[in-house]
Amino acid sequence: MTDTTISRPSKATSADRIDVSAVGDALLGKWKKERLEGRQMAEDPRMHTIYGQPMEEHRQRVLEQLGILVESGAIQRAFPKSLGGDDNHGGNIAAYQELVLADPSMQIKSGVQWGLFGAAILHLGTREHHEKWLPDVMTLKLPGAFAMTEIGHGSDVASIGTTATYDAETEEFVIHTPFKGAWKDYLGNAALHGQAAVVFAQLITNNVNHGVHAFFVPIRTPAGDMLPGVGSEDDGVKGGLNGIDNGRLHFTNVRVPRTNLLNRYGDVSADGTYSSSIESPGRRFFTMIGTLVQGRVSLDGSAVRAMQAALAIAIRYGSERRQFPGASGCDTVLMDYGQHQRRLLPRLAQSYAMAFAGERLLTVFDEVFSGAGDTPENREDLETLAAALKPLSTWAALDTLQEAREACGGAGFMAKNRLTGLRADLDIYVTFEGDNNVLLQLVGKRLLTDYAAQFKNADRAVLAKAAASQLGDRVTRFGLRRVGQSIADLGQVARSVESMRAPETQHALLSDRVETMVSEIAMALREATKDVPKGDKLAHAVASEEAFNAQQHKLIEAARAHGELLQWEAFTEGIEKVKDTDSRRVLIWLRDLFGFGLIENSAAWYLVQGRISPQRAEAVTAYIDRLLGRLRPHALDLVEAFGFTPELLRAEIASGIEEERQAEAQTYVDAQRAAGTWPIHEKELRARAKK
Amino acid sequence: MTDTTISRPSKATSADRIDVSAVGDALLGKWKKERLEGRQMAEDPRMHTIYGQPMEEHRQRVLEQLGILVESGAIQRAFPKSLGGDDNHGGNIAAYQELVLADPSMQIKSGVQWGLFGAAILHLGTREHHEKWLPDVMTLKLPGAFAMTEIGHGSDVASIGTTATYDAETEEFVIHTPFKGAWKDYLGNAALHGQAAVVFAQLITNNVNHGVHAFFVPIRTPAGDMLPGVGSEDDGVKGGLNGIDNGRLHFTNVRVPRTNLLNRYGDVSADGTYSSSIESPGRRFFTMIGTLVQGRVSLDGSAVRAMQAALAIAIRYGSERRQFPGASGCDTVLMDYGQHQRRLLPRLAQSYAMAFAGERLLTVFDEVFSGAGDTPENREDLETLAAALKPLSTWAALDTLQEAREACGGAGFMAKNRLTGLRADLDIYVTFEGDNNVLLQLVGKRLLTDYAAQFKNADRAVLAKAAASQLGDRVTRFGLRRVGQSIADLGQVARSVESMRAPETQHALLSDRVETMVSEIAMALREATKDVPKGDKLAHAVASEEAFNAQQHKLIEAARAHGELLQWEAFTEGIEKVKDTDSRRVLIWLRDLFGFGLIENSAAWYLVQGRISPQRAEAVTAYIDRLLGRLRPHALDLVEAFGFTPELLRAEIASGIEEERQAEAQTYVDAQRAAGTWPIHEKELRARAKK
Repeated sequence: MTDTTISRPSKATSADRIDVSAVGDALLGKWKKERLEGRQMAEDPRMHTIYGQPMEEHRQRVLEQLGILVESGAIQRAFPKSLGGDDNHGGNIAAYQELVLADPSMQIKSGVQWGLFGAAILHLGTREHHEKWLPDVMTLKLPGAFAMTEIGHGSDVASIGTTATYDAETEEFVIHTPFKGAWKDYLGNAALHGQAAVVFAQLITNNVNHGVHAFFVPIRTPAGDMLPGVGSEDDGVKGGLNGIDNGRLHFTNVRVPRTNLLNRYGDVSADGTYSSSIESPGRRFFTMIGTLVQGRVSLDGSAVRAMQAALAIAIRYGSERRQFPGASGCDTVLMDYGQHQRRLLPRLAQSYAMAFAGERLLTVFDEVFSGAGDTPENREDLETLAAALKPLSTWAALDTLQEAREACGGAGFMAKNRLTGLRADLDIYVTFEGDNNVLLQLVGKRLLTDYAAQFKNADRAVLAKAAASQLGDRVTRFGLRRVGQSIADLGQVARSVESMRAPETQHALLSDRVETMVSEIAMALREATKDVPKGDKLAHAVASEEAFNAQQHKLIEAARAHGELLQWEAFTEGIEKVKDTDSRRVLIWLRDLFGFGLIENSAAWYLVQGRISPQRAEAVTAYIDRLLGRLRPHALDLVEAFGFTPELLRAEIASGIEEERQAEAQTYVDAQRAAGTWPIHEKELRARAKK
Repeated sequence: MTDTTISRPSKATSADRIDVSAVGDALLGKWKKERLEGRQMAEDPRMHTIYGQPMEEHRQRVLEQLGILVESGAIQRAFPKSLGGDDNHGGNIAAYQELVLADPSMQIKSGVQWGLFGAAILHLGTREHHEKWLPDVMTLKLPGAFAMTEIGHGSDVASIGTTATYDAETEEFVIHTPFKGAWKDYLGNAALHGQAAVVFAQLITNNVNHGVHAFFVPIRTPAGDMLPGVGSEDDGVKGGLNGIDNGRLHFTNVRVPRTNLLNRYGDVSADGTYSSSIESPGRRFFTMIGTLVQGRVSLDGSAVRAMQAALAIAIRYGSERRQFPGASGCDTVLMDYGQHQRRLLPRLAQSYAMAFAGERLLTVFDEVFSGAGDTPENREDLETLAAALKPLSTWAALDTLQEAREACGGAGFMAKNRLTGLRADLDIYVTFEGDNNVLLQLVGKRLLTDYAAQFKNADRAVLAKAAASQLGDRVTRFGLRRVGQSIADLGQVARSVESMRAPETQHALLSDRVETMVSEIAMALREATKDVPKGDKLAHAVASEEAFNAQQHKLIEAARAHGELLQWEAFTEGIEKVKDTDSRRVLIWLRDLFGFGLIENSAAWYLVQGRISPQRAEAVTAYIDRLLGRLRPHALDLVEAFGFTPELLRAEIASGIEEERQAEAQTYVDAQRAAGTWPIHEKELRARAKK
């Protein structure tokens, strides 16, 4: 295969095939053992979705599945050793992520029980709480809800309306949802099974609101009756995850003992005096909310797993399925079509990038949560990393599941082929545990803060100079350089696609994009307020808000570019772990496809900024086409490396059934031809008559 | 509001508001009466989806809904006057499209019964067939399936495996599915309710295969028992449309009378002699298959209606829902966020373009099917138009439903807010009645044919010259012009965004893209075979196929660009029908948002081709931002113009419920403040202490 022609061999020769198991191990990563345990759990037929099962039965089944998880010892990894757990935070999430291929309802309901309800008691409560409630939480004797989101406030948790007012006389908190907007909503375990809830409420004592805190509040008897003052409404049918009993909770002056405040970061003494180890109410809030990062890490890896499953199904089917006769006389295999490759292979590259990025995220998570590296800086980095990766992977999962569904045609629409069910269930992943757009905005703000920090001790003159140099740089790119040489590629580094293939160049292009976007936004924000009198705080706030809003879309795009850069870096790092030469070569093609794909997607930006020339932009696309041709023979091996057993994949069209049917049809036709009973086609008759 | 600042008034002043009813009428178009009748039908509670209804019950309900359509006289529009119909083809599809908002399962099952099964008898059969079967088809006494697609062959109908072999002795056709790949699949009415099927099979007589023809084949007794030799398999649960009993059918030497061949385009006499009014087997096949265009026209408009519903829901909710406090002290309305506008308003513009394009398609369809303009050329144009528009609108519907769902957060995921259900049901619209990618490829091939036709009588020298002029033009754009003046916009016409706003310029940019892409592809295809010896047919075929495959992705993109151009043209035409000045001004902004959005999406292409300068590309984005600000106050009116009643929309979050809840919360807070019982926030206490 040369570099200048697109050749399409359907299968890799045995000589240059990747080492499927080595690549598979790189993907399984550090927590291979736990992942394989999670997969074993997910292979159990009792844990599988039954498509079309009515909601009530599905909810019951999922509750039972949670019991099976307990019996199998699958849930205690993250809990303290003192309570029979393993204190294994990374391994816990790794195993959890694998459960998505059994039934996402089961996965998410178990996440509610142990990852939210239980984890809130663990991370926001103290020893007394742990000992009192966690054993029953762990055995599912005490199913619970995580009552944070309200009908009126989702993303903006700080503004929730539920109050917990301290009554010093009785030494109780009064939990109250004073209007409908303050009702807790979308809570798993709220409609049916929850007996308690961790309720987030504004803590009020001595007529001062100390902000959002978490309270342990019993809601239901084990027999299922609501406790006095507590009401529940069923959310009913949803777009997916219908095995979970999501619902609303409302509280009318419900009293709980003072000690039900989960008091790790803030406490109220018997006389009503508030105290906290964190002085700033803002930082205190974000510290408490920060424990939620676990959910985002979990969803990130789960999304990648679903994405891999979609690709395994569509690429297997596409490697067998044939449609429309080719010049050879045979019908053409779908994966040999240029468009089919364009649809599936860049997503395959994405899935690798995201798998490696997820592993990196999980590693950082484990460092923080195990205590090995639990510093405020690391927590902040972890949160930013999770906020950057979770949106990209959950969106990519939906996109890939949909493309895979379409690539499999009508067969892709059948529930038994799994693509539609996974897509419906994963839909909500893009807005829960942090709305994707809100998360990316958080990342963008962090990028702006980091940018500003460079100039922290600089005076106005330095700032002005920095801004001018940015602008000057731009003017140069647009003006002088272009006139002089027509192509002004990045610092003359990238003279050809050959040189763009160098990882350093890809990295430079990708990181330059993030940095330039962020600095441009920062300058625009600065410009907007520079003429507002310093004293006029309101005018300043309004001008800042308007300017920020005008930049919001661009900031979110910058955050996305940052996340993509992180993925590219993780992919490049991940390849280092694979020692086999053939595998590395193929993985580097795949990484290049990912990197070039990012550049192609943002080609307009690179062109406008003068980072690449028009000729180079065309070369990027041409090189992508070449990579598709090179990777096509390895496509099946690359999904094989995901290591999915038939019990995990459970898609009829990924079972080889299509090839069997084609063999049967061919046998029939061959037999007819041999027997002389195969009719001649009128077209051929006419062609013969013409001669 | 000036052109240089982005201002964000939330509501249009009454003075410059659009005339909602005038715009609404323009959208309802020529078949307003039939559309309103269709909507009345769709408002009937008996016709509505019940979310979470188990599949069996849903199937039964949908069957009953079809009965209601019959009782209401809603289905006979397309049938001949001689049989009690209206011969109103455009009106029939118009009314049909509106049914999507009742229950897509009901819509599609009725489409199977009357638009496919019934229409096949009507368009492929002759008078005897009409009189014999259509009355019972129309009353639903005879439910039927449309048995074309096979497990082994979907897009490639010409290669189906089912055979209909004529037996002159008994004057019967023997219908046979000789292997599993030949089983008919995904057929509505096949699993349960169908008593007959129009079966597509290779017609074989005297040992000659005359290609695919349609046969009327009884399959079930009215009591539901399969007839001898016919077997059925239930497709089971699907990703959506679960009110339809899709299934498989297989036939083992099932005999039907000779006269059951639907013989409008091909017949077999008693002695087995085949005859056809269309000599070419290829053209005969495409003529028969061409009657399928009705389904594509139907889906196009249905997709637009679902898209409009999604926008009506998300924009209404986004106009009430608030999140995160703004500088003003109040929480900010979602629609005032820059990103929210970027997410929803370009899609609103798209929906207008697609609605007007759909109206144009329906008009062409009506001309052909009413016989007023039924020429081969018009049929071909109709097919190309449908093949260009149906992919874009069905994909846009999924994209918009999803963005709307995400823009509504958790509330968007609740079935009662309709977005997820419509999305699940419409998923299959992108691959049935013609896979979207395959349809766009058809369009691309037509564009290539038209391009080649220009040179039909030209000799080689002329061709070479044309190619050189194309290339030369390109070289100029890349080289000389750029060096000389740095900006080489299209023919010097577009000197600024101001001039790009001229419809002529937008049109020139959009059509230039289609033409240039097609001519480049044509040249690449010609290049690929020019060195292959003329005599070597196989080598020629292989080289052509490889070259075509290498261009496939680009060709599909060219077809997409062609469809977008058609939409842009239809939008521009549609505005002409609105006489109110304020409405026209707003609609022109919306059309510009659509046009500029297309240019922004393809900015890299325009830059690479030297069609726009980098500065101009940035100005396009800046102008889009300005348009978003201008259109934001009109967003609610623009979805109001869709004219959806609450009974059609049926989404709780589009009912004003969010504003009510906010008012309730505000009343509570105000009362607390007035009573002096509103607690002070710790943050404020600290701020006061600092002073």
